[in-house]
Amino acid sequence: MSSVYVIGGSGYTGSELMRILLNHPKVNELTVTARQWKDESVKEKLPHLDTELRFEELNLTKANRSDFVFVCLPHTQAMEIVPKLDTRVIDLSADFRIKDQNKYEAVYKVKHTAPNLLYDAVYGLPEIYRSNIKKARIVANPGCLATGAILALYPLVKNYDAKNIIVDAKTGISGAGKNVTETSHFPNLNENIVPYKLTNHRHIAEMEQELGVDVHFTPQVIPVTRGILTTVHAFVEGDLERVGEFYKKTYKREPFTKILADPPSILAVRGSNYCHIGGFAHEKGRVVLFSAIDNLVKGASGQAVQNMNIMAGWDERAGIEAMGLSP
Amino acid sequence: MSSVYVIGGSGYTGSELMRILLNHPKVNELTVTARQWKDESVKEKLPHLDTELRFEELNLTKANRSDFVFVCLPHTQAMEIVPKLDTRVIDLSADFRIKDQNKYEAVYKVKHTAPNLLYDAVYGLPEIYRSNIKKARIVANPGCLATGAILALYPLVKNYDAKNIIVDAKTGISGAGKNVTETSHFPNLNENIVPYKLTNHRHIAEMEQELGVDVHFTPQVIPVTRGILTTVHAFVEGDLERVGEFYKKTYKREPFTKILADPPSILAVRGSNYCHIGGFAHEKGRVVLFSAIDNLVKGASGQAVQNMNIMAGWDERAGIEAMGLSP
Amino acid sequence: MSSVYVIGGSGYTGSELMRILLNHPKVNELTVTARQWKDESVKEKLPHLDTELRFEELNLTKANRSDFVFVCLPHTQAMEIVPKLDTRVIDLSADFRIKDQNKYEAVYKVKHTAPNLLYDAVYGLPEIYRSNIKKARIVANPGCLATGAILALYPLVKNYDAKNIIVDAKTGISGAGKNVTETSHFPNLNENIVPYKLTNHRHIAEMEQELGVDVHFTPQVIPVTRGILTTVHAFVEGDLERVGEFYKKTYKREPFTKILADPPSILAVRGSNYCHIGGFAHEKGRVVLFSAIDNLVKGASGQAVQNMNIMAGWDERAGIEAMGLSP
Amino acid sequence: MSSVYVIGGSGYTGSELMRILLNHPKVNELTVTARQWKDESVKEKLPHLDTELRFEELNLTKANRSDFVFVCLPHTQAMEIVPKLDTRVIDLSADFRIKDQNKYEAVYKVKHTAPNLLYDAVYGLPEIYRSNIKKARIVANPGCLATGAILALYPLVKNYDAKNIIVDAKTGISGAGKNVTETSHFPNLNENIVPYKLTNHRHIAEMEQELGVDVHFTPQVIPVTRGILTTVHAFVEGDLERVGEFYKKTYKREPFTKILADPPSILAVRGSNYCHIGGFAHEKGRVVLFSAIDNLVKGASGQAVQNMNIMAGWDERAGIEAMGLSP
Repeated sequence: MSSVYVIGGSGYTGSELMRILLNHPKVNELTVTARQWKDESVKEKLPHLDTELRFEELNLTKANRSDFVFVCLPHTQAMEIVPKLDTRVIDLSADFRIKDQNKYEAVYKVKHTAPNLLYDAVYGLPEIYRSNIKKARIVANPGCLATGAILALYPLVKNYDAKNIIVDAKTGISGAGKNVTETSHFPNLNENIVPYKLTNHRHIAEMEQELGVDVHFTPQVIPVTRGILTTVHAFVEGDLERVGEFYKKTYKREPFTKILADPPSILAVRGSNYCHIGGFAHEKGRVVLFSAIDNLVKGASGQAVQNMNIMAGWDERAGIEAMGLSP
Repeated sequence: MSSVYVIGGSGYTGSELMRILLNHPKVNELTVTARQWKDESVKEKLPHLDTELRFEELNLTKANRSDFVFVCLPHTQAMEIVPKLDTRVIDLSADFRIKDQNKYEAVYKVKHTAPNLLYDAVYGLPEIYRSNIKKARIVANPGCLATGAILALYPLVKNYDAKNIIVDAKTGISGAGKNVTETSHFPNLNENIVPYKLTNHRHIAEMEQELGVDVHFTPQVIPVTRGILTTVHAFVEGDLERVGEFYKKTYKREPFTKILADPPSILAVRGSNYCHIGGFAHEKGRVVLFSAIDNLVKGASGQAVQNMNIMAGWDERAGIEAMGLSP
Repeated sequence: MSSVYVIGGSGYTGSELMRILLNHPKVNELTVTARQWKDESVKEKLPHLDTELRFEELNLTKANRSDFVFVCLPHTQAMEIVPKLDTRVIDLSADFRIKDQNKYEAVYKVKHTAPNLLYDAVYGLPEIYRSNIKKARIVANPGCLATGAILALYPLVKNYDAKNIIVDAKTGISGAGKNVTETSHFPNLNENIVPYKLTNHRHIAEMEQELGVDVHFTPQVIPVTRGILTTVHAFVEGDLERVGEFYKKTYKREPFTKILADPPSILAVRGSNYCHIGGFAHEKGRVVLFSAIDNLVKGASGQAVQNMNIMAGWDERAGIEAMGLSP
Repeated sequence: MSSVYVIGGSGYTGSELMRILLNHPKVNELTVTARQWKDESVKEKLPHLDTELRFEELNLTKANRSDFVFVCLPHTQAMEIVPKLDTRVIDLSADFRIKDQNKYEAVYKVKHTAPNLLYDAVYGLPEIYRSNIKKARIVANPGCLATGAILALYPLVKNYDAKNIIVDAKTGISGAGKNVTETSHFPNLNENIVPYKLTNHRHIAEMEQELGVDVHFTPQVIPVTRGILTTVHAFVEGDLERVGEFYKKTYKREPFTKILADPPSILAVRGSNYCHIGGFAHEKGRVVLFSAIDNLVKGASGQAVQNMNIMAGWDERAGIEAMGLSP
């Protein structure tokens, strides 16, 4: 049994971690910090959680005595804390995802204050880095849009010469966090779909780092709470009938990434750590295919727990076996 | 470890049972029947379920060799099958809920063909009948709207003289099932709210049977998939400041029924077996309070598993520990 | 042709007025103020409006030269401005709706600074006060929830002895305005329904003033943008089969208030000035019936234009003939 | 004043035509047919319409005495009726949109029974064919997805050498019509997004006919009722800073097609005949831009009325001046 320390429990990734960890079979001690809610009852602030826990103030000594620390802080805040941790760390921010310091600083428009840790931190996508994650002290948990796009493109770019890759992502609004904004105002999003960051979303840096190809990426917020449907269009040479086969082969032993014949559905993966990929079709040299994840689970807290399970050598599915809440 | 047999896996209560039972720690053998999908792969018909199971045809011998049989058939079909079962049975239909045969026949407008079993079947609301459920061979799992209303009213009618009780229920559309209808047509329900069965919903019979008082009940379908918010208005004599106290006392040992100060939220119980009750307020002799459940979980398949857990003597929370999927 | 001046064009009632007035056949001059958007292009701030108008700063001289002034300010701000206007005024705030100054001050918890105008201002519900509105200099446009409730109850309380009247209202979130709030945050309202002001909503004062009976009122926000479905439950003596008849008779000459046999739908009145009432049913002494309006049209800006049309002697439907945008 | 005859009033395009035509200033006589609803009251079948009309059976003599006939029949049924009409006709089906009979037959997999009329029928997109529509006897009203895509691409392909054009469309479900289907079942679409016809949607034939370039088109149904957001990605050579300028120039005199700097919103055009285009951005040779229409208005019945107005020489905006119902 293990102790887990969550830094930053007031946002969606923090509460989603609690939802999972409170029922995790290998976790017997859970501490969650939230500065503005210090000493307050978790279940009063978050009535969906059935627990007697109270939020605490950050205590680095206690954090470092824990087996695992999850960092759920905004980027820039994370890189202040992570260097002070000497236990195993899963950082859900963007601060340790980009290996090239200059690239990070260009994209996030801020100086990196812990560049020496950049190469220690393993990019936490188990489908690609499982063996490194096993040994990692720090895991940089991928971005939600990056997870959807990389898993959808990885077998394609490994097996084909793909050009002019368009990733047209549709994301639920919970990816934008808990703070109310003009976009999250119900009358503005309901019966609507909202394009944003048309050509310069920060997650593009992760996609291009991991895939090694140019990615043209445009996200749009759809009027749903959870889920990312990533639509990939690419101009590809080779035998396009075999695309699906390569996906099946690549992911055949994956516990969470599953290949379907039909286009996947964000509803089928809602609340779960699954990534569904499917819908392989092509015409006139274009391939189109789709991935579906829950942005708060496989796109954030579920994948973070998957990474912890791998690091600890537990069943990779422990605590995240839940199937999609559908309908 | 136990074997479980589900009769009728093609509808929402059947697929919800599978979602729960496939991860239930005490169930090692699961069989699911669905006549129209015989031999078809469960995960192809229901992509949110990660399983190699195939649907089977009903086989009474196999059913009776199982430790538990869940019957997920429409009313009238259930009362044809249940008498042929001699193992422990949880029936999700309405056929064994109403103890008075005449009442059943008046409400459902059909002759009861197994009236001798009516009194054997225990009404499966653990909050009231836990000890009977423990010993029951047949459990009649309550209706979803009845569950929401009875849990919301039970402490009130036990502790006060309540008159002119209005139950104004708001239900997600999944309660109406998987078949497409005019009401379930997205353009008809989206941006709408649809009253139905204004004075004669069949679940009223369950409410009045269990509560022993007249209930004036009107349901409305809201544009959400899961969840029932039951609003109770009642004209009550006595010390209205103490209403909340009686609720806390009544449900204090319940693993799933929780009392909140604020009005509960169907989002906080979504995907979970919890029932939240709260919002106790009053003015000019009226009390108003609310209960929130997920109609497919505490209102159907989750409560059915809770009943199985009680019958088997397992931890009542086994397999249904999941907290609300919120947001 | 007439000139119209709108004070406070940055909120929903202001933009909805523009949507209507820009196509009104009798309005040839429109001015709209919005302090924070002074000199800004209306269509850039509000892309659904096709107009070359720019927002202006409030100019009382110009306002008083106009034929009609609409005041779309929060309560308390309205009562500062209205006394300075000497043209015909339609005030959409709450400040002149309650005739009893003490009642207003108790409900709104603020001193009334223009009590001498309270009795000059006519309560702007055409179905009851059409002839007074015709001659009024100041019209106090009713609250949205009050409009739905009063129209739904008026024929009942005039023709029956109704007791224990429960008004259980379900409202779209646009009634809460344009400012982002925790309730309007999409992840909080989507797949949810949110009760609020369980016993003390301020619009109760309008309902009780106009109906002369006690009203027990509880509103709930549903995950839709526009629309109020008002469910009325009342315990009534007399011939309950005739309830619908009295409604037809009361509203028979009304251009916008229509009686249906079935329960009405907020979708059928969306974007329109109609109020639909229907669903008359009863059991054991309870009557249940429903009204449906668009909270921003018949519940606010549409009714305000209807009042202007009456005051001006124009066709009451001018500019607000649009039928419901359904689906 | 004119008489109008609508054939097929039971579907969404028919009811939307009625919603518009019942308030059209130049239409004084309206007849609507619907075989299955013969003699039934329009307002009882469609409560959002305030009219005393009744549905009639098709009467070709009466139709031919009308000034305009709108044909709202499924494809194949339309080409049976149109040859029997000798008045001015606006056909909302696909039967006369594709000029190349072989192409039509290949795409729709049916023999064309009135090929002689194919070249008489003008493709009813006023932004391109206004002068031909003016003189046309038969107008083939464009498909909804085709309208969104052609208006979004037309200035681009006229002014640039665009390659690898991807059109990723997001459409509300009302475009699929009034019949209940698995996709339109609320629990299947709510909290979801559903790709379909991944590479072979029939409207591609219209797009390629009108644009003269290859179009790679994939539509997805979003959980909204009305609206199409068309996302265009294209690889383009030339001065990409000037893209927006060409759009402004092309559409500068258009009453309904408007250019915005920001990405457009389907909410801003909801219920209106406007098409908004905007969001011009580019990186690494890709241009991305968006159009937004209401599929039932500019994508169907509103554009049909716009065509009638042009044919009749009336103000092109008559009857369709309504601005977007936002929020």
